[in-house]
Amino acid sequence: MATVRIERATAADVPDILAFIQGLAEYERLLDNVVATEERLRDSLFGARPAAEVVFACAGDERVGFALFFETYSTFLAQRGLYLEDLFVKPEHRGQGYGKALLAHLARIALDRGCGRFEWAVLDWNAPSIGFYKSLGARPMDEWTTFRMTGDALEALARLDPASQRS
Amino acid sequence: MATVRIERATAADVPDILAFIQGLAEYERLLDNVVATEERLRDSLFGARPAAEVVFACAGDERVGFALFFETYSTFLAQRGLYLEDLFVKPEHRGQGYGKALLAHLARIALDRGCGRFEWAVLDWNAPSIGFYKSLGARPMDEWTTFRMTGDALEALARLDPASQRS
Repeated sequence: MATVRIERATAADVPDILAFIQGLAEYERLLDNVVATEERLRDSLFGARPAAEVVFACAGDERVGFALFFETYSTFLAQRGLYLEDLFVKPEHRGQGYGKALLAHLARIALDRGCGRFEWAVLDWNAPSIGFYKSLGARPMDEWTTFRMTGDALEALARLDPASQRS
Repeated sequence: MATVRIERATAADVPDILAFIQGLAEYERLLDNVVATEERLRDSLFGARPAAEVVFACAGDERVGFALFFETYSTFLAQRGLYLEDLFVKPEHRGQGYGKALLAHLARIALDRGCGRFEWAVLDWNAPSIGFYKSLGARPMDEWTTFRMTGDALEALARLDPASQRS
């Protein structure tokens, strides 16, 4: 039985990170939504103010999975949380514990940093992942829906003059 | 017509922040979930490594609303996002544009910081807020569900030995 080695990503790993992001997007049928480039990843993840952290799961010399995460905040707890933005294991290495090893690694990071919550989002059709997460004791926040603003709507909202909002 | 003044919170404002958090929790019927204290808020928001930022909407000298937010990351965009964890306006001041002024202020912060997304979560029974958000062009991410791990499940996951996860 091999051990799963977890490695922290550095700037030299940006090509691998982009390949994993694209692999996940393809699995999620969202590849058209990916506009990430190596340059943008380098700047945002390994520049002066890193926006997230990345680890790989390795089998021998091969990187077979990755996780990208950042810290959040819960007002009810007055405590940080950990948010898993991306988790992906190459198809040919699934079902061998790499995903669970990545999640366990992040759970340890969460506890080490005093985070009260560990969270991530799943596409509703992704039954295998949902079953897996439930088996680990994760709870679906079914009563909540995330709203997202981008592009023109975001710019229009930013242009609103607060003074004009009072009647 | 009065102007909505937006003020950035400082450590001296922790009692007001806690009161707003409790007000929101009461509205969301989740007051039992609030374990935040002034001391924990002070440490986590205004200590050596602030976990989130807070602004108030003011009517004259009165603080009538607040927003708490932090930065996130999108791998598909390779770009930061802004996440609104809490938005609350005192009941007696609703419908006068304070909430919209807070959202517009955060949209400006998002664009200033190069964020590609502005996001927040809403309870599914909160129809007034959902209608308001949709009117601003926010899109419900209906196809996604957030999973959350806390407490015993998180500790059990952290204790998993990665080596035992390979068959």
